[in-house]
Amino acid sequence: INIKIATNERNCDEAVNELRRRCCDYNALGFDCEWVTDHGKRKPVALVQLSSSDGLCCLFRLSSMETIPNSLKDLLEDEKIYKVGVAANDDGKYLFQDYSVKLKSTLDVRYLAELCGLEPGGLAVLSKNLLRIVLDKSWRIRCSNWEADELTVKQKQYAAADAHVAIKIFEYLLKEYRFKSMMKDLLRLSKKLSVDDICQKYADIGFKQ
Amino acid sequence: INIKIATNERNCDEAVNELRRRCCDYNALGFDCEWVTDHGKRKPVALVQLSSSDGLCCLFRLSSMETIPNSLKDLLEDEKIYKVGVAANDDGKYLFQDYSVKLKSTLDVRYLAELCGLEPGGLAVLSKNLLRIVLDKSWRIRCSNWEADELTVKQKQYAAADAHVAIKIFEYLLKEYRFKSMMKDLLRLSKKLSVDDICQKYADIGFKQ
Ligand code: NA
Ligand code: NA
Ligand code: NA
Ligand code: NA
Repeated sequence: INIKIATNERNCDEAVNELRRRCCDYNALGFDCEWVTDHGKRKPVALVQLSSSDGLCCLFRLSSMETIPNSLKDLLEDEKIYKVGVAANDDGKYLFQDYSVKLKSTLDVRYLAELCGLEPGGLAVLSKNLLRIVLDKSWRIRCSNWEADELTVKQKQYAAADAHVAIKIFEYLLKEYRFKSMMKDLLRLSKKLSVDDICQKYADIGFKQ
Repeated sequence: INIKIATNERNCDEAVNELRRRCCDYNALGFDCEWVTDHGKRKPVALVQLSSSDGLCCLFRLSSMETIPNSLKDLLEDEKIYKVGVAANDDGKYLFQDYSVKLKSTLDVRYLAELCGLEPGGLAVLSKNLLRIVLDKSWRIRCSNWEADELTVKQKQYAAADAHVAIKIFEYLLKEYRFKSMMKDLLRLSKKLSVDDICQKYADIGFKQ
C-alpha cells in the first residue's frame, strides 16, 4: 500500500488524477475522514482519505489548505464513483457543514456483506473475517492531532488503513456476490435442463416442417 | 456399434433388458421400423429397431415371431422412455394397426434441431451436418425383403443405422441446447452484475443494523 499526502492544490490535483485513473475497474474508492475533537467539540474535518483497490491511498490534509481544491470537491461530488466505507454518509454531513461539499454515491460495505449472507459487523470485524487484516483501533492514534504540521508514520498508516481496507472488503464482497449469483443461477438452470423439461412438450406430437 | 438380432421371446426379453439398463442416462432410445411393400400395399411392420446412445442397437424381427413379446410391448408403451426418430409418431400408427401396440413418448429430433436454431432437415441431413455420418439411403436396401429368413449384413447395418443415428443426433442436440442455454443465462446474468446494478440501490443510504 502506497500512501500519498496532499497538502496543497497542486499535489491535490495530482493525487485526484491518479485516483481517477486507478478506480476504473470498479468506479469505487475506499473512503474515510478524520478530525480533531477539542473538549468534546468536533473541529472541521482535517483529513480525507481515498484509496483505490490496487493500493494507492491518498491523504488529503484539508487542515493544511486554505480551501478545498476543485479537483477533490469534484471527485467527492462525482456520483459515478462510489465512496465505500462504513457510515460514510455521516462523514458526508460533516463535509457539507465544513466545506459545502456534497459527498455523492457513498456506499456502506455492510450492505454488500448482508447481500452475501454475512453478519455485517463493523469495518474491523469484516476486515478480520474476510481479509485477515487486524485494524489498529487504539484510542491514542484515533484521537491524535490530525491538524499537526507533520503527520507521524503511525498516523499516516492508521488513516490510510480504513480507506484501504474498505475498498478491499468491497472488492472481496463484490466477487463473492457475483460468484454466488452465478452458482445459484447455474444450479437453477441445470434443474430446468433435464431431458423431460426439454422434451416433454414435444412428445407424441408429429413434426410439421 | 453393436447389433443384436431378436427373433423370439427369449432373446427379445434379453435385448429389452439390456436396452433398459443402457438408456438410464437420457431415458431415450433411437427408434425406427421397416416393413415390406408388396405391389404398393404395406405389409405388417417386420422390424423394430431400438438403439441406446452408448452403441447397442437391437433389431426386433416381428415377422419371425408369432406375437409381439410383452417385454417389447411394455418398452414401446413405456412413457418414461423417449423413442427418438424422425416421424416415429407415424410408425406408431402402423404398430397399433398391426400389433395393437400403443407407442408412447415418441420424440421427433427435428424439434430439438429447431430448439437449437438449426434447419431441421431430415435424418440424413442432420446426420451429415452434426455427426459427419453419411447414411446409405439407396432404394435397393430400403425396399428389400425385411421378412427374409435371414437378414443380410447390409440389411442389418442399414436398419441399425437410422435408430443409432437418431439417438446420437438427440444426444448431440441435447448437449448443444444445454450449452447454449447455459451461455445465454451466464451472459444475461453477467449483465446484471455490474457494480452499478449491485450497488446503486444502496448509494447514499445510511446503514441501520
Ligand atoms: Na470514519
Ligand atoms: Na478512520
Ligand atoms: Na422410419
Ligand atoms: Na429406416
